[in-house]
Amino acid sequence: MKNIVLLICCLLWNIVLVAQIPKKPNIITFIVDDMGWTDAFNPNYHTPNMAKLAKLGVKFSHAYATPVCTPTRTSFLSGMNAAHHGVTNWTSPIKDENSDATDQQFSPSSWKINGLSPKEYTSYPQILKQAGYLTIHVGKAHWGAAGTPQANPYNLGFQVNIAGHAAGHPQSYYGKDNYGNLPGKVSLQAVPDLEEYHGSAVFLTEALTLEAIKSLETPIQNKQPFYLNLAHYGVHTPIQADERFFQKYLSAGLDSAEAKYASLVEGVDKSLGDIMAYLEEKKVDGNTIILFMSDNGGLSLAPARGKKAHVQNLPLRAGKGSVYEGGIRIPMIVKWPGFAPMNMVADQYIMAEDLFPTILQMAKLKDVKTLQALDGKSMVPFLKDPNLKDADRVLVWHYPNKWIDQDGPGINYKSAIRKGNLKLVYDLRTGQKELYDLSQDTAEQFDLASKQPAQCNQLTQLLKSYLSQHQSPMPVDRKTGKVVEIL
Amino acid sequence: MKNIVLLICCLLWNIVLVAQIPKKPNIITFIVDDMGWTDAFNPNYHTPNMAKLAKLGVKFSHAYATPVCTPTRTSFLSGMNAAHHGVTNWTSPIKDENSDATDQQFSPSSWKINGLSPKEYTSYPQILKQAGYLTIHVGKAHWGAAGTPQANPYNLGFQVNIAGHAAGHPQSYYGKDNYGNLPGKVSLQAVPDLEEYHGSAVFLTEALTLEAIKSLETPIQNKQPFYLNLAHYGVHTPIQADERFFQKYLSAGLDSAEAKYASLVEGVDKSLGDIMAYLEEKKVDGNTIILFMSDNGGLSLAPARGKKAHVQNLPLRAGKGSVYEGGIRIPMIVKWPGFAPMNMVADQYIMAEDLFPTILQMAKLKDVKTLQALDGKSMVPFLKDPNLKDADRVLVWHYPNKWIDQDGPGINYKSAIRKGNLKLVYDLRTGQKELYDLSQDTAEQFDLASKQPAQCNQLTQLLKSYLSQHQSPMPVDRKTGKVVEIL
Repeated sequence: MKNIVLLICCLLWNIVLVAQIPKKPNIITFIVDDMGWTDAFNPNYHTPNMAKLAKLGVKFSHAYATPVCTPTRTSFLSGMNAAHHGVTNWTSPIKDENSDATDQQFSPSSWKINGLSPKEYTSYPQILKQAGYLTIHVGKAHWGAAGTPQANPYNLGFQVNIAGHAAGHPQSYYGKDNYGNLPGKVSLQAVPDLEEYHGSAVFLTEALTLEAIKSLETPIQNKQPFYLNLAHYGVHTPIQADERFFQKYLSAGLDSAEAKYASLVEGVDKSLGDIMAYLEEKKVDGNTIILFMSDNGGLSLAPARGKKAHVQNLPLRAGKGSVYEGGIRIPMIVKWPGFAPMNMVADQYIMAEDLFPTILQMAKLKDVKTLQALDGKSMVPFLKDPNLKDADRVLVWHYPNKWIDQDGPGINYKSAIRKGNLKLVYDLRTGQKELYDLSQDTAEQFDLASKQPAQCNQLTQLLKSYLSQHQSPMPVDRKTGKVVEIL
Repeated sequence: MKNIVLLICCLLWNIVLVAQIPKKPNIITFIVDDMGWTDAFNPNYHTPNMAKLAKLGVKFSHAYATPVCTPTRTSFLSGMNAAHHGVTNWTSPIKDENSDATDQQFSPSSWKINGLSPKEYTSYPQILKQAGYLTIHVGKAHWGAAGTPQANPYNLGFQVNIAGHAAGHPQSYYGKDNYGNLPGKVSLQAVPDLEEYHGSAVFLTEALTLEAIKSLETPIQNKQPFYLNLAHYGVHTPIQADERFFQKYLSAGLDSAEAKYASLVEGVDKSLGDIMAYLEEKKVDGNTIILFMSDNGGLSLAPARGKKAHVQNLPLRAGKGSVYEGGIRIPMIVKWPGFAPMNMVADQYIMAEDLFPTILQMAKLKDVKTLQALDGKSMVPFLKDPNLKDADRVLVWHYPNKWIDQDGPGINYKSAIRKGNLKLVYDLRTGQKELYDLSQDTAEQFDLASKQPAQCNQLTQLLKSYLSQHQSPMPVDRKTGKVVEIL
């Protein structure tokens, strides 16, 4: 009898052991390209799935990216600030081609024009992959120029790559255009890998969603944890009508450019909804984390966008390319079932590089060795308690590049730093400083530099020491040949 | 004391249980495009790795494919004969475009010009994937036209696809040409997904090998069984010099076209060697099956090849496109460590569709349900005992298509059937029959049709009933509008 009891205990213990193998959560980063902070919750746009996600998770009211895409995407993967990793501007698909516009005052800084080599860092998809995750990239990659390892998502930790390459936008969103792959008309922006939909009416956003869902079938069936980076090309230029939604916005009175833009936004919202519905159908939604975000502020250049320039992200100032809030503040919603509360807003300011330690902590991967020192901080404390605040955190933006021919608000050769509610904007051309209190002045209209010189100086010194510590690229004065210094 | 003994027994039993989980073998199909039966063991070419593989495995002396690529590749994946699956010719990358050349006598047959839909069959990669394999396709796909599901290897059971699409050959083998992706010069044959090597000196064969090796890193590390279909674009046209080997063959006296071809062959041989070396380095060679083969006979058209036409596969008659042995007999070597003997030759005739049941048997997957009825037979008995023979097996080739403008030897509108050593070649244009005894007449020079009318008639009836059973596509007479009948 005793023996039988012992045998049963032994068998039960086996069951306990098996049950104790920690179940890794599935993780999805859902990245929209160029979607502004105000686009996700804009009454002009129909985005019920973003609203649903916010109800199921935590919305960050002060999430930040860099002013343009490649620096943000590199910060995501590396956990490094752009001033540290050195890819401060978007990368050309052509190797050794500097994407900076020509400038009279400055010759280009020594930023990493081809992107960050995988030899210089350990990406978190690489770590997830080694921990048994199937790592999948679908959509826009844009981590580096063709002819370099970073052009290829496989070298950055992804086992599966669908439609990601060296280009930063699609040649066309239309299946009837083969997404750009029409013989005789092909540019470097022709989207690869989607031949199944060539000649069809399937819009690019939809094709990527269908492929993303397909890619999840096997890991779900085989109970392998997955990491999916669904990085939409939408809502980047070319701003083309997604015909499924376009007419509705025209009828609502939006101008043609804005109706097209709205149709792109609704297309990615539908994609988010389709992904969520699929997870529910497969009964894995309870074990799947979704991190929804953009890679920079909304485009505010006209005539690409409708209306006049720089008003599209109101109440935020300016847009993509700028270090003002319109260029860097992004929508971010995180659904973490069982760990983060639902329907809460976290006001802590966080930044692109925080994704790296956050995801590893969510996946319960500790003591991970990386080639690089991380700048990002885990968002997990703020996810578990959205009321938590850290006013000592310092965030830095560094854009020592010329994005467009004409300088605009916060655009071209600008840096910025935020600590607590204070944000310093530093003009690398002139040394001019602006200081804003974001708790009182979301729109950055009231420059406090002359009123609060001590704080202004303190932030300047912090910025200077941060850039100096990381040997950040700086523009070079054409006349003197000297590198710009923060003063 | 008794209790402790029982406890130890229990623990030991657990160890036994874990050890008994059958270890799935890794499987690699290494497919060379258009490589002839005599190319693998040709003293004119330097192919030490093919020779090494043959020493470690079983070489099939009578392995067959269809006369061109898509039908063979479809037979691989579906386990069906081309007369059954209906994709009897190569598929154009353009949807609904019939690749058949125009003919005065016949209008085209109702073959599946866009390829076989995945809705019509269950592929073995799909089955392997569901059994926990990571399924990887690298290189040429060519299972169907763009705009159809079969253009996309993901729909055919592959989780990973690198460089496979709707096209049947590369626009260029050269990294300096971006494998065809030069703006303004891009054709439908531009090879996708290899931007990392654009602008470099890396030859396409080498780039695919590097990517294939990369794709194996994670499954090997995570002890996940893998299936790799490394399907080289080499040695298909455009016959371009692989500069690593070209000069050697010129110096050896080959003409320029043949020296280029030889350099392509040596390039795939090096690839095979690199894969084998990698498996050895990772200590998984003992649990990895390699099936090396071509997809049809060697090209024998001039001036693409050097010399005069149709002599490149001697002693076999004709070449690619023909139902004579030069067009359909392929090199095949199988290394199956621990299960198949080393350095043996199996003379049993086998065919492309046999790959399907063979691979599933090797992977110990039994009672598998498929949408289609299989025509293929497992090669496992012949692998375990290469001396085994089955003279009752019937093989059928059916090519009711016009491959090239001018009819050639065994080329355009031909069918054939083999049983034992006898092979009937049937001309769909004229109803003419030829009969060869392959045991005496490898070169198909001695037509026995008039000497052995009974056998000739028996094989004709077998062919007729096979085609009728599968409702195989047949050419249509332009004058009468009637479908050709075997008489």
